Amino acid sequence: MRETSAVITLTTDFGYQDYYTAAMKAAILRISPRATLIDISHALPPQDIMAGAWVVKNVAFDFPPGSIHLCVVDPGVGSARRPLICEIEGHFFVGPDNGLFPLIADGKPLIAREIINPDFMLAEVSNTFHGRDIFAPAAAHLSTGIAAERFGPLVETPLYFRWAQPISDDEGIQGWVNHIDTYGNLITNIPHKLLPQNGQTALKIYAGTTILKSVDRCYSSVTEGEPVALIGSSGMLEISVRNGNAAELLNVRKGMTVSVVYQK
Amino acid sequence: MRETSAVITLTTDFGYQDYYTAAMKAAILRISPRATLIDISHALPPQDIMAGAWVVKNVAFDFPPGSIHLCVVDPGVGSARRPLICEIEGHFFVGPDNGLFPLIADGKPLIAREIINPDFMLAEVSNTFHGRDIFAPAAAHLSTGIAAERFGPLVETPLYFRWAQPISDDEGIQGWVNHIDTYGNLITNIPHKLLPQNGQTALKIYAGTTILKSVDRCYSSVTEGEPVALIGSSGMLEISVRNGNAAELLNVRKGMTVSVVYQK
Amino acid sequence: MRETSAVITLTTDFGYQDYYTAAMKAAILRISPRATLIDISHALPPQDIMAGAWVVKNVAFDFPPGSIHLCVVDPGVGSARRPLICEIEGHFFVGPDNGLFPLIADGKPLIAREIINPDFMLAEVSNTFHGRDIFAPAAAHLSTGIAAERFGPLVETPLYFRWAQPISDDEGIQGWVNHIDTYGNLITNIPHKLLPQNGQTALKIYAGTTILKSVDRCYSSVTEGEPVALIGSSGMLEISVRNGNAAELLNVRKGMTVSVVYQK
Repeated sequence: MRETSAVITLTTDFGYQDYYTAAMKAAILRISPRATLIDISHALPPQDIMAGAWVVKNVAFDFPPGSIHLCVVDPGVGSARRPLICEIEGHFFVGPDNGLFPLIADGKPLIAREIINPDFMLAEVSNTFHGRDIFAPAAAHLSTGIAAERFGPLVETPLYFRWAQPISDDEGIQGWVNHIDTYGNLITNIPHKLLPQNGQTALKIYAGTTILKSVDRCYSSVTEGEPVALIGSSGMLEISVRNGNAAELLNVRKGMTVSVVYQK
Repeated sequence: MRETSAVITLTTDFGYQDYYTAAMKAAILRISPRATLIDISHALPPQDIMAGAWVVKNVAFDFPPGSIHLCVVDPGVGSARRPLICEIEGHFFVGPDNGLFPLIADGKPLIAREIINPDFMLAEVSNTFHGRDIFAPAAAHLSTGIAAERFGPLVETPLYFRWAQPISDDEGIQGWVNHIDTYGNLITNIPHKLLPQNGQTALKIYAGTTILKSVDRCYSSVTEGEPVALIGSSGMLEISVRNGNAAELLNVRKGMTVSVVYQK
Repeated sequence: MRETSAVITLTTDFGYQDYYTAAMKAAILRISPRATLIDISHALPPQDIMAGAWVVKNVAFDFPPGSIHLCVVDPGVGSARRPLICEIEGHFFVGPDNGLFPLIADGKPLIAREIINPDFMLAEVSNTFHGRDIFAPAAAHLSTGIAAERFGPLVETPLYFRWAQPISDDEGIQGWVNHIDTYGNLITNIPHKLLPQNGQTALKIYAGTTILKSVDRCYSSVTEGEPVALIGSSGMLEISVRNGNAAELLNVRKGMTVSVVYQK
């Protein structure tokens, strides 16, 4: 049994002006008063599963083993989506069956269960706020040590989304911008390990209105206002402008192509 | 005596860029280091008592009994408003006497006391930041088990605001939009129980540029981009657009009329 | 040794939409699971050292003695800046050597140490996210009672910024706007103690498009929409508009002059 002061993280597209996030915390604290509640983000673009998965995937596994991650970013609020508890590498993820959890797992083994046991829901479940009525209570009960099996049966085929993979051959790599962060940094879907590791290969990186000729060590490898390519904290190729907003300055939006071409 | 790990919620119009909310938390932690601090919202429209009351009213009573709710949304900062502790159904609310607490009570019995005992204030009270100097310390002392009576005398007539009620007769209901949430959902002042309960009455709902013919079960009763009327998580009639912003798409602002007309 | 439930505050320019702040909290909780985590602000203007110092300086010392303040507002991410632990009046400040801590100290004695001991860093330190890999672990280890000396050697000359001081003579005071808060209040660099204390000196205060003739007690000394000068919660001369936005209404931006002229 886990100790009762388990970490529960919360990630939603609820914004910061309404009571919705607090309502989930209230539901948790009624059941698990000693849980440690940590907000990941509540400023996700409304109903953007990909953005939610990106944010959660890059931080969830940094929390202590056994942490519980409540993820409610849901284009299908109140519809017939199954409520799920997913276990991925000793962490628990709670939310609707909308494709988010396979994106977080990103290839790691995932065990999904449907939450059907009414003992672990709010007595009266509304049609519009499953975050408060089903998901928060489930996370809270998990945090008190209730085993995942007691919530409901295994789900063999949760809704499955996967991250699109970059195309790589001996001429180069074609990927695209997966995420643009607060600073305007362009985070691509090209992982560090896909780039030439010998440090010898000359290359050109095409991103929006600029061409870069190397992968640098950090933002300050260039002078202020200049673009730079580097490996970001998520392990992906990232295009930044030192002390500037790369998305604006290079005129790049999410989904746009970033190409790496080897020079021979 | 309550246990020392009581929940203290915080609701303000302080925004997220300044140190004001943290200053209240610092004052609390000096007095009650084991309090559980939960933010409800700090993004309320500046000095909007109604919006503050709406947000707090819909979540405060979901917290464990004995929780303390610090509410500082104050058009009269530093003026002669009395600082209050209000008890409503076993919950405590702390903040200025500006009409907020009767709106939260919304008909429930309310016991108000003025905070006058200097033992429970910061040693030096500023003229401009009663949130830090009076209200946060009062909430903290309450959370350690100090009885409300020790803070000061009963207030017979706190400033009294009430929610405007919809007009209902056998032809229909006339209400209006009380709140627009992050998603652009239009939350009216028409409670579920005012609508025909037999499920037989044909009706039309007029909201902005649209007319709806039923109260549906959830957002996904309609196709993407279509408007829908439903009972929201606050128990009120709500007009939404599935995966869209109803306020923008139907051109409706807070305070505008929503009419329900029975079809005979 | 401090007790393990020490307070750790967090101040960054990371915004609220990414996982960066949560990644620091995850790193802390792995090391110090019982730390009390308090957000000061994550909405600072990107890389604005002065704004960061202003916010932290006005609240840090209100927290319990021995609190740890993690401050990552960094125009030089990943560059060769030394990671520091600074002790100021019994509080600990952790972050890069970028001038922020001397601004927070503002004349108080400051003991700076460089963090060089790899035992107190993440096993693998990235080039781009020292907040997660160096600063958060250092704050966490401090909170468990590890003495500051064990992190690394004294730094004699941390990067030193100072607050510009107003000019004062027997004709008046010339200062300027140091900070504009969420409400549009103009917070100057003129401290209360620099103003005539006898309450007799007639004066005029020039701020943007307005001239004020007194320092009032609180916002509500004037009618709604009127400007007022007062001593704010930070102890500085502040120009406000009652229930309005002074920055907009008086057309004043950060850095603009505010003059106090004595009338003889």
